[in-house]
Amino acid sequence: MSSSPSPLARPFPALPPVSGVTLHVARAQYKTWDRCDLTFVALDAGTSVAGVLTQSRCPSPEVDWCRKALVLGEARALVVNAGNANAFTGHRGIAAVEAIAGRVAQHLGCQLSDVFVASTGVIGVPLPIDKAEAGLDAAFAAPSCDWAEATAAIGTTDTFPKAAMTQAVVDGRTVALVGIIKGSGMVAPDMATMLGFIFTDAAIAPGYLQAALSAANRTSFSCITVDSDTSTSDTVLAFATGKAGNAALASDDDAGADAFRAALNELCLKLAHLVVRDGEGATKFICIDVTGAESDRSAHRIGLSIANSPLVKTAIAGQDANWGRVVMAVGKAGEPADRDKLAIRFGETQVAANGLAVIGYDEAPVAAHLKGDEIEIGVDLGLGSGRATLWTCDLTHGYISINADYRS
Amino acid sequence: MSSSPSPLARPFPALPPVSGVTLHVARAQYKTWDRCDLTFVALDAGTSVAGVLTQSRCPSPEVDWCRKALVLGEARALVVNAGNANAFTGHRGIAAVEAIAGRVAQHLGCQLSDVFVASTGVIGVPLPIDKAEAGLDAAFAAPSCDWAEATAAIGTTDTFPKAAMTQAVVDGRTVALVGIIKGSGMVAPDMATMLGFIFTDAAIAPGYLQAALSAANRTSFSCITVDSDTSTSDTVLAFATGKAGNAALASDDDAGADAFRAALNELCLKLAHLVVRDGEGATKFICIDVTGAESDRSAHRIGLSIANSPLVKTAIAGQDANWGRVVMAVGKAGEPADRDKLAIRFGETQVAANGLAVIGYDEAPVAAHLKGDEIEIGVDLGLGSGRATLWTCDLTHGYISINADYRS
Repeated sequence: MSSSPSPLARPFPALPPVSGVTLHVARAQYKTWDRCDLTFVALDAGTSVAGVLTQSRCPSPEVDWCRKALVLGEARALVVNAGNANAFTGHRGIAAVEAIAGRVAQHLGCQLSDVFVASTGVIGVPLPIDKAEAGLDAAFAAPSCDWAEATAAIGTTDTFPKAAMTQAVVDGRTVALVGIIKGSGMVAPDMATMLGFIFTDAAIAPGYLQAALSAANRTSFSCITVDSDTSTSDTVLAFATGKAGNAALASDDDAGADAFRAALNELCLKLAHLVVRDGEGATKFICIDVTGAESDRSAHRIGLSIANSPLVKTAIAGQDANWGRVVMAVGKAGEPADRDKLAIRFGETQVAANGLAVIGYDEAPVAAHLKGDEIEIGVDLGLGSGRATLWTCDLTHGYISINADYRS
Repeated sequence: MSSSPSPLARPFPALPPVSGVTLHVARAQYKTWDRCDLTFVALDAGTSVAGVLTQSRCPSPEVDWCRKALVLGEARALVVNAGNANAFTGHRGIAAVEAIAGRVAQHLGCQLSDVFVASTGVIGVPLPIDKAEAGLDAAFAAPSCDWAEATAAIGTTDTFPKAAMTQAVVDGRTVALVGIIKGSGMVAPDMATMLGFIFTDAAIAPGYLQAALSAANRTSFSCITVDSDTSTSDTVLAFATGKAGNAALASDDDAGADAFRAALNELCLKLAHLVVRDGEGATKFICIDVTGAESDRSAHRIGLSIANSPLVKTAIAGQDANWGRVVMAVGKAGEPADRDKLAIRFGETQVAANGLAVIGYDEAPVAAHLKGDEIEIGVDLGLGSGRATLWTCDLTHGYISINADYRS
């Protein structure tokens, strides 16, 4: 954790162990820091896996590796490196991922494709293979650790450790879902965002786990943005060990499928919100609720245009009820909009409707709302039934300080 | 002019009068400030007009008015209001534009459609008609003024007055082109940007003037961005009085057409660069040169993705050769890109090629380049012959200070 916690930070929750999941951390010393920066998660045989990965056209070799391995749907291990993204490192970066997978496969006696790897940190510097291998050997030898230690070990510029849990009753058994996540900057919604890992003891067929994760992603990780900058390394992986002993979920018709999906959706949303709460420099958690658009997709794009607007984000930082900037952001989205049907609210207070400020608009309740640290902006297009909810944070001096100084 | 001049400011140039163009300014007191904020430009009969206007779906009534009036291609007057954008003001905003046009048409004895209006400032507050009318009457009575006074009067958060000139020989006559422009924030390339006005004494048919302006716009105003936020009011209008006495230009085949278009292109580029130089909080003028893309359009989108990336902009502000952020921005653009063919340079120094850092990369010349205030980032995709050049500025504490405090 790099600096004092975000003012929007949440305490680390109590998390249960997940049967079939064993956590280890070690010091690979990818940077000269005094902390664990390599996480090794051993997964019992029979674990299903699903994932959503960055849509960047310049992905890291870890992303390429995971995308390929996901096709088989089985996992025995996860390795996370913090402090070096290993992205844009050519054949040397690929060699590092292969070396890591090889070392783990040999240690566990599993297939290369059972090993999942994710790395986060500086782009353009090949991950040093010697440090990775020494770190892995240390992790293999280390006693298992708890969620808090693993969550701390995957962080980089994060200011607080981020994790969440949910439960569901499936086939008469209570299954646990635990997620850990890291991310603070270079966060924009294009499928997954940053590194997030979800573990459950439920038994789930890989294809169905993938369908459930992809759907959950669409209304969680794909609906947050800190700075519009989509990472080369965004990865969310979900592992299901099957240790709960339920009849494996394979379709929406299976008993408990609805409960599991609801729990997964809730977990993804909690994790996504935590990333926004740790947005670089954030002082306000902003929810943007778009309704009345021509389609859900259109609503999502309009919401993103608002959520990524530097002028909207700085206005919120300044506690300024500058709703004209919201109009601007709707207008520039390039989506169907009719100025004279547009309505805008801050919190519960309608500020504009039918193309102009509401009659007798009283700024006092809006000013009060903007003083809080949870801000809601509602936009109704008045065109159709399309809707989307997005989350972002404000843009402050803190963001500039962090990113104009962060050394490449 | 609202604060100390941008460190990238340029001195106000010497500008010739343009025959057929008479400038007046007055105090409408749209805000409580001690300055002229209404500009009235009288144009002699026979003036052609062309324009490019914001693509915002929530345009100001001024933009709607100009779009409609441009169809006829004739102009007798331009009125510019500073301090109030009159955008998102419903029927009251429309009434204000109609009142202004009516007052001017009556004064000059011209058609309503000969009067062009542009307003800039806060969104959501109807332009007070009484102030506009009193201001117009004062402007009618005022002696004519020079370019410097008119340029100052159209500014809002601008930190220095921005104008430029070029010349061309058309049909044996030297014609002058003078442009004045305002803009500092809420600047993003979607056709025109902010308010820019170009005046020439050349004789040009309206349709041909429009073609020339639209083409010039594509490589100038459409290639700059300060903060990705496209205004509701962006307007660039070009007026040609015909007083130079050349045979009117009506097609590319006419003598002097090439020279005129070259001069117009150069003028638009100069004006666009001045807006970037006055970008809110700017300390670096950044040129982004994209080559080797699949198409020019793809190159433009990739360039925009880089130019609008907060992480790239803060890295330049911090004089940090963090080229990994350029890789990220290329990757997120959603355009065809092959990580392993990508090459990046800062200034003259190649930093990455073929998907990784160049062998023996020496950061010293890059660090020296980044200390200057004119930065060049070159990206070659290695895919085709598509290219684009874009200009932006860095993202600094200054931007946050200006926009988190600016009152709605």
